[in-house]
Formats: sequence, C-alpha cells, structure tokens
Amino acid sequence: MQFTSDNTAAVHPAVWQAMMAADAADFPYDGDALSQRLDAVVSDLFGRECAVLWVATGTAANCLALASMVQPHGAVVCHREAHIEMDEGGAPGFYLHGAKLLTAGGESAKVTPETLAAVIDPIRDDVHQVQPHAISITQASEYGCVYRPGELAAIADFAKARGLGLHMDGARFGNAVAHLGCTPAEAASGVDALSFGFVKNGAMSAEAIVFFDAEAAHAIRYRRKRAGHLQSKGRYMAAQILAMLADDLWLDNARAANAAAAAIAAAAPDRLLHPVEANEVFLTCTAAERAALRNAGFRFYDWGDDAARLVASWDAKDGHVMALVKALAAL
Amino acid sequence: MQFTSDNTAAVHPAVWQAMMAADAADFPYDGDALSQRLDAVVSDLFGRECAVLWVATGTAANCLALASMVQPHGAVVCHREAHIEMDEGGAPGFYLHGAKLLTAGGESAKVTPETLAAVIDPIRDDVHQVQPHAISITQASEYGCVYRPGELAAIADFAKARGLGLHMDGARFGNAVAHLGCTPAEAASGVDALSFGFVKNGAMSAEAIVFFDAEAAHAIRYRRKRAGHLQSKGRYMAAQILAMLADDLWLDNARAANAAAAAIAAAAPDRLLHPVEANEVFLTCTAAERAALRNAGFRFYDWGDDAARLVASWDAKDGHVMALVKALAAL
Amino acid sequence: MQFTSDNTAAVHPAVWQAMMAADAADFPYDGDALSQRLDAVVSDLFGRECAVLWVATGTAANCLALASMVQPHGAVVCHREAHIEMDEGGAPGFYLHGAKLLTAGGESAKVTPETLAAVIDPIRDDVHQVQPHAISITQASEYGCVYRPGELAAIADFAKARGLGLHMDGARFGNAVAHLGCTPAEAASGVDALSFGFVKNGAMSAEAIVFFDAEAAHAIRYRRKRAGHLQSKGRYMAAQILAMLADDLWLDNARAANAAAAAIAAAAPDRLLHPVEANEVFLTCTAAERAALRNAGFRFYDWGDDAARLVASWDAKDGHVMALVKALAAL
Amino acid sequence: MQFTSDNTAAVHPAVWQAMMAADAADFPYDGDALSQRLDAVVSDLFGRECAVLWVATGTAANCLALASMVQPHGAVVCHREAHIEMDEGGAPGFYLHGAKLLTAGGESAKVTPETLAAVIDPIRDDVHQVQPHAISITQASEYGCVYRPGELAAIADFAKARGLGLHMDGARFGNAVAHLGCTPAEAASGVDALSFGFVKNGAMSAEAIVFFDAEAAHAIRYRRKRAGHLQSKGRYMAAQILAMLADDLWLDNARAANAAAAAIAAAAPDRLLHPVEANEVFLTCTAAERAALRNAGFRFYDWGDDAARLVASWDAKDGHVMALVKALAAL
Repeated sequence: MQFTSDNTAAVHPAVWQAMMAADAADFPYDGDALSQRLDAVVSDLFGRECAVLWVATGTAANCLALASMVQPHGAVVCHREAHIEMDEGGAPGFYLHGAKLLTAGGESAKVTPETLAAVIDPIRDDVHQVQPHAISITQASEYGCVYRPGELAAIADFAKARGLGLHMDGARFGNAVAHLGCTPAEAASGVDALSFGFVKNGAMSAEAIVFFDAEAAHAIRYRRKRAGHLQSKGRYMAAQILAMLADDLWLDNARAANAAAAAIAAAAPDRLLHPVEANEVFLTCTAAERAALRNAGFRFYDWGDDAARLVASWDAKDGHVMALVKALAAL
Repeated sequence: MQFTSDNTAAVHPAVWQAMMAADAADFPYDGDALSQRLDAVVSDLFGRECAVLWVATGTAANCLALASMVQPHGAVVCHREAHIEMDEGGAPGFYLHGAKLLTAGGESAKVTPETLAAVIDPIRDDVHQVQPHAISITQASEYGCVYRPGELAAIADFAKARGLGLHMDGARFGNAVAHLGCTPAEAASGVDALSFGFVKNGAMSAEAIVFFDAEAAHAIRYRRKRAGHLQSKGRYMAAQILAMLADDLWLDNARAANAAAAAIAAAAPDRLLHPVEANEVFLTCTAAERAALRNAGFRFYDWGDDAARLVASWDAKDGHVMALVKALAAL
Repeated sequence: MQFTSDNTAAVHPAVWQAMMAADAADFPYDGDALSQRLDAVVSDLFGRECAVLWVATGTAANCLALASMVQPHGAVVCHREAHIEMDEGGAPGFYLHGAKLLTAGGESAKVTPETLAAVIDPIRDDVHQVQPHAISITQASEYGCVYRPGELAAIADFAKARGLGLHMDGARFGNAVAHLGCTPAEAASGVDALSFGFVKNGAMSAEAIVFFDAEAAHAIRYRRKRAGHLQSKGRYMAAQILAMLADDLWLDNARAANAAAAAIAAAAPDRLLHPVEANEVFLTCTAAERAALRNAGFRFYDWGDDAARLVASWDAKDGHVMALVKALAAL
Repeated sequence: MQFTSDNTAAVHPAVWQAMMAADAADFPYDGDALSQRLDAVVSDLFGRECAVLWVATGTAANCLALASMVQPHGAVVCHREAHIEMDEGGAPGFYLHGAKLLTAGGESAKVTPETLAAVIDPIRDDVHQVQPHAISITQASEYGCVYRPGELAAIADFAKARGLGLHMDGARFGNAVAHLGCTPAEAASGVDALSFGFVKNGAMSAEAIVFFDAEAAHAIRYRRKRAGHLQSKGRYMAAQILAMLADDLWLDNARAANAAAAAIAAAAPDRLLHPVEANEVFLTCTAAERAALRNAGFRFYDWGDDAARLVASWDAKDGHVMALVKALAAL
C-alpha cells in the first residue's frame, strides 16, 4: 500500500489513449499539431494569453521558468525548504549559470512579504552582494499548504515593488486549485511564470511551463533546446497535457488525491504537523509506530526522527486509504 | 507519405505494451526495478560491464556523456557537420560550461585520424589556446555512413595516443550495427561512452547513455539530475529501452529502415551524394524535381539548393517506399 | 584618519621599487624570470613543494583555488559570514559553474568540525541533494580571529575523513601568522590550497594562490587564463609578491597592523565583540558615539546598528592610532 | 633587441608617477576619486556620454563587453583569427556561459559585411541552431590592419540591420587612431562597447571597457566583481588610464610604435604579408633568414614556417630599429 510519493502513481488511462493517438505520423519536435494547440488551450484555461512549453520534469520547468527572470549574477529568493533549494541537485545553479538561491523562512514552507523582506532588506545595493532578481513560491507548498488569493496578492505586490519576477512551482498546482475551489487564474494571480505540474497528477512525463507574458517565452524556447529538453517526438508530450486538461481531468484527479489525504488526516488530527490542504500528510509518529505501520504493509517516507510523510496519489485505492485510516486510529 | 525524419515514426507496439506494463506502482526516479535492470541487460549486449543512464533526448545523452570527459576549459573535436555542432542549439556549451567544439573535416561527415590531426596538431600546448579533451564521432554519421571496425580502431588509437576521451553519438547506432552486420561491441569498439539511440528507431522518448567505464557514470548521475533529466517516473523510460533490446527489436527495426533506404537508393543510383549505409538517402535533385515529388505526396527536407534528404523510418510503409521508388525512377 | 579598510593603505616603497625594477623588458604573461621564481621562493617559505599563481584579487584567488577541488555539481562548505558567501558578488557561482555554497555557523566567523558536521550530516548521499566537495576557511577570519594549529588539525582531519578538499582564504594570512607566532606552514597546516593575500598588507594588486599539491595547479593555469587573469605584463605581479616575501616584509607589515589594532582594542576592552587577533577591531558603539568619532576625524564602517568596524593598516600612522585610543577612552 | 611583443614594453614614466601619486589613502574598490573621474574624461575624449570600467586584461575587457550583448544561448561572430577565438583560452565561453563563437573570413583578419553574411545567412532562425547576438571586430586587427570609417559604417549598418550588438577589441586602438589620423569617435563609429587597450601602449595593467550606451554598463559592474576583476585598490588602475589619456600620451606612444613599424616595413617592402597600418610587421622569412636575425640579436616570433612577426613597442629604441632595418635590407 503505497503512500511514498505521488510519483509512484500510474498514468491515467485517458493519458495513455491520448498518447497512443499521437502515433499518427506528424512533424518532429514541437512543430506538431498537438504542441501547437497548447497555447490556445492553456490561454483559455487562464483567461489570458499564455505561452506554453512542455518539458519532462518539474526541475526543468522550474529552472527554465526562472531563467526568464534571473541573470547569472542575480539571485532567486525562495523558502529554505523549497524544492529548488533542497531537492533539485543544484539545477538552479546550472540553468541560471551560477545565480544564487537566497532562502527565507515561513510556516509550512510558505513565504510571506515579511520573511522575504528579512532576507532582501539587509542586502546592500552594491556589486559585492548578489542582488535578488526573482521570487519563487510553491503552490501547494512542500508541506502541502496553499497560498490563498490574498496571500498571493501580498507577495505579488511585494515582488512588483522590488522589481522582482515571480515564479510559482506548481508541481501540485492542481491540488491547490482543487483545495481552494477558485479558478486557476486566481490560484496563480500575480505570477509571471508557472510550472504547471501533471506528472504527479496522472500524466507520465509532461509538465508545462506557462508564461503569462508570452514574450518571455521566446528566449526560453532556445534555452529548452539547449538543455536537451526539446524532445524529437514532442507530440507525445503535448498529448499528455491536453488529455489532462480535457474535461477537467486534472481537477478530478487532484480532488481524488486531496480527498484521500483529508481522510487520512481526519484519522489522526492530533498528529498533524501542517494543515492538510493538498495531498500530503505530515504526522508526528515514533519509530515504533512507523515500524508498526510498515509491518502492516504501508509504504511511506520517514520525515526526520519523529515524523512521517504520507502522500496520496490520484489513484489511491479506497481500500488502502481505509486501511491506513484504521491503522492510524489504532496506533 | 512521410520521409522527413525518423522522428515522425510511430512508437512500436511492443514499446507501448512495455510502458503500460510499467504502470504497476513502483519506486520513483530511477530506483525502480526496470531502471535497475538496465546495467545488466546492456552489459550483456556488449559483453562487458557497462553503466547505463536513460535520458529523454539525444542532445542530453551526447552532452552528459561528454561531460564525463571534458573539463570546462577544454574542447571536443568533432566533424564540422556533427549534430552536436550544427543541431543542438549550443547544448554542448551549456552542459560543458563553456568548453569549445573544434571542428574537423572528412567525407560523409566521418572524421579520420588525419582530419582530426589537422585540427589538433596546430594547437600549441599553452594556456592561451583551448586544449582538446575528447573526440566525438557519429555512428551512423549525419550523412548515413558507418565507421567500419578498422576505421574505429584507427580513431580510438589516435584518441588514446593523444590522451583524449572518445564519445560516440549513436542516434542511429542500430542502423549502423544492422548495416555492418557486426556485434554492437564491434560497432562501438574503443569508445568510452555511447549515446545509444532508440527514439528514431521505435521508442518514444528514451535514449541510453552507455558508459563502458562504469566509474565514469558516477558523476554523471548527479549531472543528469542537475540538468532536470531524472524523470520522477523513470520506470517508463527504462521500459522503453528494455522493450527495444528484447528479442532484437532494435535490430529488426533498424534493418527495416535500412532496407527501405536501400530500395530508394537503388532507384536513383546516379543521384546519390553519399553511400547509403543506414536509413538516410541524400540525392541531387533540382527544385523542379522536388516540387514534382511533393506534388506526388512525398514529404522530405530540402538539402541546400540542389539536393533532398529522404529518411526511412522503421515503420516506413512498403507502399510508400514503392511509390517513391517509382517516382524517382520517373524523374 | 583612515580606519575604513586595509585596502586604503598605500603600496609599500619596497614594492614600488621592485615593480619599477621589473621594467626591464622580458617575456610576456608569466614566462618572465620573476614569475618563474615564485614556486621556489614560496616552496622555501613553506618548507615543501608548492605551485604558485599570481592573480589580481582575493576573489579570483579564492575561486580559482576552489575550482581545483569542486566540480560544478558539488558544493563548498564555509562560514555563513565568509567573504566568499557575503562579499564576492557571487564569484564562486561563476567560477565553479553553479556549484553551491553551504554555510555553517561558528564563533567569530570560524567554523569547527561540529558546525561543519551540522551542515554536512543531514545531506543524503543521493543525486537530489548537492554534495559537498570542499571546505573553505578564512585565516584570519572575517572577524579578525585566527585558527590555532590544533583547531586547524581538527578541521583538516574532518575534511580528510569526509573526502573533502580544504581551502584557506588567507586575505590576512600575514596577520594570522604574525599573531600566532608560528611558521607559515603551521598556520596553513592540512590545507590543499591557500589564497595568500598581499594587497591588504602592502602590495598593490597581487595575491598568490599556493597549491600544496603542485599537480592541482595544472588545470588552474588554464582556468586563470580563461578568467582573464593572466596579465600580459605578469612580471609586475610577481615582483610585488617577491618584494613582500623578501626580508619578511609581509610579516613586518602584518605585525605593525596587528600592533595598531591591539592598541585600539586595549583602549576599549569592554566594547570588543571579538578577540582582536589580527588587524580588525569590532566594537559596540552607539550611533551617537560613532558620530562623535567621525566628527573627530575618524573614518570607519558601521557594523550593523550598534557596532563599528575599525581596521588598522600596515601603514597606520602612530598619531592616528594614538588619537583614536584617546577618543575611544573618552567616549 | 626585443620585437617579440608590445607586452614586453616598459611602463611609461608618467604612468609610474600617476600610480605612485595614487598612494594617498582613498576609498577602496572603484569608489575613489580617480575611478570616479573616468567616465567624464573618456566621455570628453569621444564627445558623447560613456560609462567606463577598468579591468586588468584585454581578455576580461573583451568578455565583459560581450556579456552586455550576448545571452548564454547566443553567439558572437568574429574573424577566425580574432584574439577572442584564438588566444584567450576559451574566456568567451566562460564569461558568456557557453555562448558560441562563429568565425568569419576576411583579408588581414578584418571581416566585412560579406564575410559576416556568409556565416550568418545560412543559420536558420530556429532553436536547433545557435543564433548570433553580436559581432566583434578588432581595431587594429590581429594583422595590424585598420578599419577605415567607411568600412566601419558598413559593418555597423549590417549589425544594426540584423539586430546584433557590435563590439570592438581595441587592444591596439591607439595604434589604429594614430594611423587613421581621425578622432577616436570616428575610429569606433557605430560600436556599442570598446575594449580600449593601454597595457601594450605604456600602461602596466589597466584596460578600459567603454560603453557608449551607459545603461549597458550597469549589469557589467556586477559581472566585473563576479569575475574577480574589481580590484580593491582600484585607484592604481584608474591612475594608469588617466595618465595615458592626459596630454595625448596614448597617441604619442602609438605614433612612436607605428613609426618604428613603418621603418621596419620600409626596409622589406617585398616581404610584407599585410599592409603595415599599426605596430606589427608580418614578413615572409625563411628559417635560415630567421636564424640569421636571431643570431644578430633580434627577438621575435615565428609565424608559421615561412614568416616572422615583428612588433614595435612604444619604447622601441631607435638603435634597435635601425639595426633591424639594416639587417632586413641585408638578408
């Protein structure tokens, strides 16, 4: 019973079908009809003109998005537990040619104007210190918490006032939108570029970089190729994204994952380390308790010495969730 | 009737099946059982210990392979029409952190010890000039021509004598092996790292980097992650490669493509610009002749003002090939 | 009365004489007789074989030294107030091609095996996290404090046990040696590469990178050229270093600066924020007190809201120092 | 008798005096009064607003200037014998983060709109090929030849029409201006950034990067620091440049060097490989003849198997030049 990661989830059948339908011979790279439809479909979703590029990983999406905002001599400000800081193997340093990550605090891996200012204000505006060029936030955060529209607005205002770009890592953007019950545009309000994640949510290998300023995408098309991320059979990438966006599949999948996480959370309300607002549950849990859960067949990550991380996927099986709920209640 | 590129070919049914079979939940990234099998399967194929990494594109494969041999202050020597020089959007400069490409001549996009020496010998061994660290060759070459074992041995000896690494871009390695009728090991003899291509030959999005010195792969695992090429659902990547290698599917597909190209070549022997030793045919062809072919329903690239490039895929339809043969004969 | 920085000090007359003597036409770059003597002179000083490269700045020295130890996908661990982290405009990110700085704590800007371990131990040995490749320490530290031989030995042992390179930023190495009263070799014991500073101590524009493993210098000669730091009239660079090392000028100058700082410190023992072990004095000092000092003609930097930094140069004038001593006593 | 390189020339006495006068304690880095005067002095010289940065080498000057025009995914077009291509150890690849050099032909190392177009026109405007972002030309060229104002205008028009930046490597800009007898503005007409060389012409270690668009200098101030080229005692750098520009010293020195070269050239008019328009003379010269010259005490570089390069410095001694003239006539 797998609660290790939403990366272990299967590919949704509708995605398989769309990929196989893309077999019909077509133009290589991103010149195919499916890739060419992405801008229109995503623009329609967000209600404004977008430029959209597919890439195979969230790491590539985040870094290419940031490359549109950050010069090599600049910095990105992010939460100190942000994925780009902790889990991407230094990819921002590679893609941004040595630009720096400056890390801020904040509850549940969410930054605020105050925690951002605490990092930025002490930086003298001279050449001896690396100057911030952009802010990166994660929606939902690394602890499964969401930025509400008002919180977003405050950060976007802060970014604008300081002349900084604003990037959103949306590896679990669907889960955030599902939780907020708002429009995608509201959940990414004020953002310049969004890494719109699909892999954790039912796709196989396609994430979208959404540029809300279509001009900004121009150079990044070159950067994507230069990074070896322009796949020669790109139609299979576009097909995944189009399938996920068709008929709100992305929202349905996210809702299913969120509901499973909510059920798990409800079984252990006193153990919760963070509000459960997406599909991740962080619980206090002793080593003995974790051993007991594992003996009962549950797979998950330890989170430090006294906690566990449980992630519900879009395809979490009801039986597994119910079993986990019971096991937690019985601890 | 598509002869534009083998990148327009469909994914082979066996590959689809293998990918779908990988849906069974498993470990993320490359910790899954399929990815873990790659080293053994490829080692068996080459008859020696190999370390194998999957990546999504030939560009990433080439650049990561070269990163194991070339320091940022060094250079790669390649043919002046090599894919890494002409068609990868500057990816080697990115992955090698500014290392240089030095370009050599040679018939049909194949280098020789002599053309390599003509580039390397004039370089003074001082810090003012960029020193070569590696050689990169393409098997089959960008003009669809193969290096015979003896030619390879001469280049490998040259590389060794100069203390240079040797990389092989095998985007069409299958086609080369099929033409040569030798073992894969013979077709890559003396090579330190091979970009073993599958996408053009029936896969969807998986290429393999094969390190014949398994130690060299260690740093490149970090580099792959850092480049955003460690997919979180890597099992679908490994599945493609394993399916292609099972039951010689890669060779069968390559033979089919080569046979189609041979049939086309046989229809216009006086027009051939290069020997047809893989699945590409370069023909002298006037603008009027090309227009006639296109009017007849054939799709292909112009190759300069007076020539055409026709590429046969693994799934080239007999009817299309026969039609093309007739059309060429009738020109 | 200048206590802003030892960078405001004049060039020592002996250095001027040596530079002008280098006017005699000679070989360009570092082929001249003076540059060629550096290895022998520095090897003699340290009692072991060294390879020595001159560069114009401490930033270049630090970064080129680190480039011999750190791959682009790795990290350097340093104190969170280290010059490479705080004051070099992101140069390590540039020279190390995106490698990361990981910052540790420690009193008076000195790291310890414990503070280093607190940073390094939580890093999982997998590709998702950036792995440390080297440690960088500063002798004397950014707060003018020195590592004693025993402290150095503990750090060097730690580095060795973890397989990490060890770099020493010796922008004020002379001040540290003068304070410790030990040999240069003892003050840099266990170090792989030392940035040996002369500019703050009486030279004009020449720092030395000292590689205690002469082999490690080989690639860095190429890197220096590639960074635009191989001056075409290098003899004027070598001349500065040779003049500083002749007749212990570097030690005499450092002792003079240290003595001036000690006198200043003795005038305000209760205000000291850090032990005064080199030529820098950090004092608690209210805004009103700082204004009074400035009105009396003293120039120095604020250090946050409640403190001041006073730096004594090799050419600090006795009268200025005595005046400052009186002014501090009178506060 | 030294004709190897103008890098072997002494520092001019007026430069020594100015440097020593800069000993008076002042602000560190480029906050000193001398550095602050540079913009005004150079703006006055060119008759338009300029922003000026000192750096220690022509390599750093060229690369930082280009960094204001070229994105990491772009290319610089230059002559195939340009210094940035042949002699800078790959520095452009480092400073431009992997951007490419594309090389053009042209007589005497001078490009023309035609030779530039021959490189640029075949580049398809797609992401597979690296796109040019700037052109770099050398005034005087690597063969000691100058671009006349009309030639410059044609190149500047070409650059503008293609949307490319235009950089001028002026390591021997003084020699070019002296030969042309025009204003500095005319000799750099249409250029966006000029590497204005002083080291070969009487200074010790200071070159100027002149930005004719002052805005473009902003980011490069950060890049200079990041490259370790912001010297802490910058006043000695500014002093050199100010001394060279005072009372036309730069022009007087260049005229002296040009005159010496002209005298040498006049002694062997039939041997000249290139017009002598600056201070370099390239002569056909057999191995036996070169041996004879060396036996007579002349030092110079071979230029391939059948030629010699003789460079006259600003301080070329009349006696040495006359001796060389006689020796050449006697060959």
